[in-house]
Amino acid sequence: MILGALETGGTKFVCATGDENGVISDRAVIPTTSPEETLEAVKKFFSGKRIEALGIGSFGPLCLDKSSPDYGHITSTPKPGWSNTDIVSPFEKALGCPVRLDTDVNAAALGEAVFGHASGSAAGKTGSDNLLYVTIGTGIGVGVYIDGHLLHGAMHAESGHIFVARHPDDRYEGKCPFHKDCFEGLASGPAIEGRFGIRGELIPFNAPGSENASFTGTEKAWDIEAYYIAQACVNYTLCYSPKVIVLGGGVMNHPELFPMIRSYYKRFMNNYVKNPYTENPDSYIVPATLSGDQGILGCLCLAKSALTE
Amino acid sequence: MILGALETGGTKFVCATGDENGVISDRAVIPTTSPEETLEAVKKFFSGKRIEALGIGSFGPLCLDKSSPDYGHITSTPKPGWSNTDIVSPFEKALGCPVRLDTDVNAAALGEAVFGHASGSAAGKTGSDNLLYVTIGTGIGVGVYIDGHLLHGAMHAESGHIFVARHPDDRYEGKCPFHKDCFEGLASGPAIEGRFGIRGELIPFNAPGSENASFTGTEKAWDIEAYYIAQACVNYTLCYSPKVIVLGGGVMNHPELFPMIRSYYKRFMNNYVKNPYTENPDSYIVPATLSGDQGILGCLCLAKSALTE
Repeated sequence: MILGALETGGTKFVCATGDENGVISDRAVIPTTSPEETLEAVKKFFSGKRIEALGIGSFGPLCLDKSSPDYGHITSTPKPGWSNTDIVSPFEKALGCPVRLDTDVNAAALGEAVFGHASGSAAGKTGSDNLLYVTIGTGIGVGVYIDGHLLHGAMHAESGHIFVARHPDDRYEGKCPFHKDCFEGLASGPAIEGRFGIRGELIPFNAPGSENASFTGTEKAWDIEAYYIAQACVNYTLCYSPKVIVLGGGVMNHPELFPMIRSYYKRFMNNYVKNPYTENPDSYIVPATLSGDQGILGCLCLAKSALTE
Repeated sequence: MILGALETGGTKFVCATGDENGVISDRAVIPTTSPEETLEAVKKFFSGKRIEALGIGSFGPLCLDKSSPDYGHITSTPKPGWSNTDIVSPFEKALGCPVRLDTDVNAAALGEAVFGHASGSAAGKTGSDNLLYVTIGTGIGVGVYIDGHLLHGAMHAESGHIFVARHPDDRYEGKCPFHKDCFEGLASGPAIEGRFGIRGELIPFNAPGSENASFTGTEKAWDIEAYYIAQACVNYTLCYSPKVIVLGGGVMNHPELFPMIRSYYKRFMNNYVKNPYTENPDSYIVPATLSGDQGILGCLCLAKSALTE
């Protein structure tokens, strides 16, 4: 089976061919310029590769409602030139195969569920039918794969923007252009930089009061970050009841954050929801494991589902 | 088609027979005493009624995982005597018909989706595949019917307990025995009473600063309440992307709350998520309309689905 995968982003489009087992045979990266130029380059990549279906994981917002005339479009994106861009039918026509579109984060959730370590974690293979993928970087996005379905609803989830309670020591106004101090506005990479005037990568991991604390004012940076991420994990647990929460994205490249998040998670949840998955935070809140390939591998899964569903 | 419906609660069990069109033919209310006594009375009600299937909407927490030995049980409830009570197999055995169990709030969401005014609202018939039912009373519960499925995950949603941001004038510590100031802890009926020392029904609906303001200290009671409910509606919109949010329960018997909630909702969301459903808050955030029967009618739907799925 030769499947096509396309991951679209604000700076690059990643194209790949592969099979249903997640083995990638060919791959190319195309810079995101104008829709005409970029989509043409994608078509060129796939032409002659005889793919049986194409799966696309895209930045959004997207219209995923098949009964809408806007189905398959990137809708009101702030990315210049890309509002109201159809990214499904041009490929259906050019490649003559079925195309399945979903959000970039839903694709990543699917990739982690099918091929990621979550499916082989302590939570057991069953974790693969109920998984959240949360990416915490420039923005915060959440892919939702629950009861064996990618969640859509009227549109798709935007759970990175939920409102959360304030860390008692945090007076930062927030970075989200829409909501200021929503979760993304308080915990994204730009929020960390906005709060302290220094990029997160440069803030050392000192526990508050530890000997080698430096950068006065940033001692609580990671405590604040873990506080918000843990609180979001609690809210997501309550809303979705997943079997595993995979945390990815640039901010999560700090492995020291995981035990801090799990510790706050336990404190906030306070034994309210108990099931075999939440009981062990070490296997419930876990790092991404597909080296950044969860998105493109999820697109292969979407392509496969376009053939079988 | 003769279907059985059973709604279980901490104070009463409601039993009914009816058909797939939501026409109830017989009904009885049984007080909640011991599991033995109460379940026996329920069996007696249904015996001889020749129901083809039974749908149960129950208080919880519940085990809905069919692969678990605890499937069909009320698990760790604080209700004395009811922990680890099997409420499925006793009825399967006694009545000899299929039984489908879900949470009380999921049953209510299903009832509203299939028979409620949401299915005929301005959102159109399509609203019936993506609906949330939020009950705000002694506790806060959320039934989630998204993409035509009742959401379960590892267990079931408990979205009434999400953490939210503080109203700037609210210093109340919160009423939730697990989380103190989660949404339920800040906005349930007992939270209103705990904050002001007076039951919500007795607090007049004066806008802050209005002429006939009375009960010094409670002027902001409904502003605070609307603030939290609106914030939860924003978070639920972001997490589930429903087509309609139905608000029920005792606290929502104050119709004045609806415009206040919609106004805060618009302010908090700040045009972030736009779709044909959220664009008109008057048809997006709506009262329950089945006169308290959404739960029992949802149980009829569960019974029907036990026969067809």
